[in-house]
Amino acid sequence: MTLYGGIEGGGTKFVCAIGNEHGDLLETTRFSTTTPEETLAQALAFFQPHAGALASVGIGSFGPVDLNPHSPTFGYVTTTPKPGWAWADVAGPIRAGLGVPVGFELDVNIAAMGEHRWGAARGLDTFIYLTIGTGIGGGVMAEGKLLHGAMHPEMGHILLAHDRAADPFAGACPFHGDCFEGLAAGPALEKRWGQKGASLPEGHPAWALEAHYVALGLVSFICTLAPQRIIIGGGVMQQPQLFPMVREKVTQLLNGYLQISYLKDMDTYIVPPALGGEAGVKGALALAFSVAPDRP
Amino acid sequence: MTLYGGIEGGGTKFVCAIGNEHGDLLETTRFSTTTPEETLAQALAFFQPHAGALASVGIGSFGPVDLNPHSPTFGYVTTTPKPGWAWADVAGPIRAGLGVPVGFELDVNIAAMGEHRWGAARGLDTFIYLTIGTGIGGGVMAEGKLLHGAMHPEMGHILLAHDRAADPFAGACPFHGDCFEGLAAGPALEKRWGQKGASLPEGHPAWALEAHYVALGLVSFICTLAPQRIIIGGGVMQQPQLFPMVREKVTQLLNGYLQISYLKDMDTYIVPPALGGEAGVKGALALAFSVAPDRP
Repeated sequence: MTLYGGIEGGGTKFVCAIGNEHGDLLETTRFSTTTPEETLAQALAFFQPHAGALASVGIGSFGPVDLNPHSPTFGYVTTTPKPGWAWADVAGPIRAGLGVPVGFELDVNIAAMGEHRWGAARGLDTFIYLTIGTGIGGGVMAEGKLLHGAMHPEMGHILLAHDRAADPFAGACPFHGDCFEGLAAGPALEKRWGQKGASLPEGHPAWALEAHYVALGLVSFICTLAPQRIIIGGGVMQQPQLFPMVREKVTQLLNGYLQISYLKDMDTYIVPPALGGEAGVKGALALAFSVAPDRP
Repeated sequence: MTLYGGIEGGGTKFVCAIGNEHGDLLETTRFSTTTPEETLAQALAFFQPHAGALASVGIGSFGPVDLNPHSPTFGYVTTTPKPGWAWADVAGPIRAGLGVPVGFELDVNIAAMGEHRWGAARGLDTFIYLTIGTGIGGGVMAEGKLLHGAMHPEMGHILLAHDRAADPFAGACPFHGDCFEGLAAGPALEKRWGQKGASLPEGHPAWALEAHYVALGLVSFICTLAPQRIIIGGGVMQQPQLFPMVREKVTQLLNGYLQISYLKDMDTYIVPPALGGEAGVKGALALAFSVAPDRP
């Protein structure tokens, strides 16, 4: 049986899996992200016993990353503040250690690929996979292709209409203060309210404000990209009360301007990932397929 | 010689041209946009003497438009407030009257096509053509394809960080008040300052504020789309002092976060259309090529 490898390389943990052409995960491991040397060695140790059966490996890495295949630093994490990882080669050691073709992508882009192949974006060609957790990032499929552009989008850093009278919090982004991530990611919640988001009760005013900022961000993305669906994952969105509040606020803010059939049913327009926490690693498998000698 | 037809169908005027495979305009006409019947009849009257030599026609229409080729209203202007044009079939009468293949697109998308084939976006695959005039609209090429998504982007309606203390103007958009178009299009300038933008002197504070809003919009687009270049046309951008002010403010707002080579030279990153006022009609020719039986 031909097997494929998938690596979801996050800033906190790595998830590695071996799967088949149907996206079934046959074996999985996860471990903390420490130094590049140690972490990539752990990934290799997981795959090496199966190296003879592996057709290819797909990697989705935390960013920023170099996605330009013509660049000398293709497959590297680039300007991250994470100690030891700035300009670390991620794809190279995996390719050299296993001797198979390796696909390399941004983590949110492979989550988008996973949802496109097996999840909430099946049959769509233009959609967003957004994650709201420690940071905010987005992967975009536009007209059937993952959007890289000049590098890759950095959707967490759009600037929002921040009403300082209603919310005097200055924002938590070291670069932009009150950008989307600075106002609405997990660290912003914690700084603004003095406790972690997960410990705030469901009826706390934090959630109405959070839904407001998420909706402001989504309206920008909807007007700029005209997505057919928006999938939102990440730790902050584990609060089940957020989805209905976000949908209602997006509808209010758009105010009937866009007569788009996709927008008529907000319950199917703004959704959680159908693959849940497996969107990333399954997407890494889908990426592996795309670089395999015989694509499944 | 094989000829091609191009129609730039604006809300105020139509421009029609006959051109060759090099994009040379051999004959051009322009007339006011009145009723659909009268306006499309004028376009047909211009092309009909050459109908035997025409391989195809490309149309770029003011929006919103239906770009879905499987839709029963493909080729229509849809929910426009312009009297007589709501749900008007634009592509159908041209196709029926000339008996040639007809391509249909949004006006800003064909301007993007024109700049891609012959202008400031040659060789790029992800860029934005933005127009700031009576309204604000944008055409996006993403990874080599025009972005339609669920309909087409409506980039003028993103919501900006509007500081009401610094600028108490409530905005001019009937749907959203102080969205990008509501704050920065021509009618907003006129309402805020009590005179048309074209009559405000170069040193008037209106222009610093305008550059600020344009820069806020561009930062959102840059973070969402990672464009390799942004081309800005339209009447408001005819003020030559705006480009340097916008470039400087975008640099300030991004604050060094994005380490992208394209962003290092703002003079080549944010530019006026290389084709000037001909971007639209030349793009309509490029669209005609794409539907011609033998593509040049």
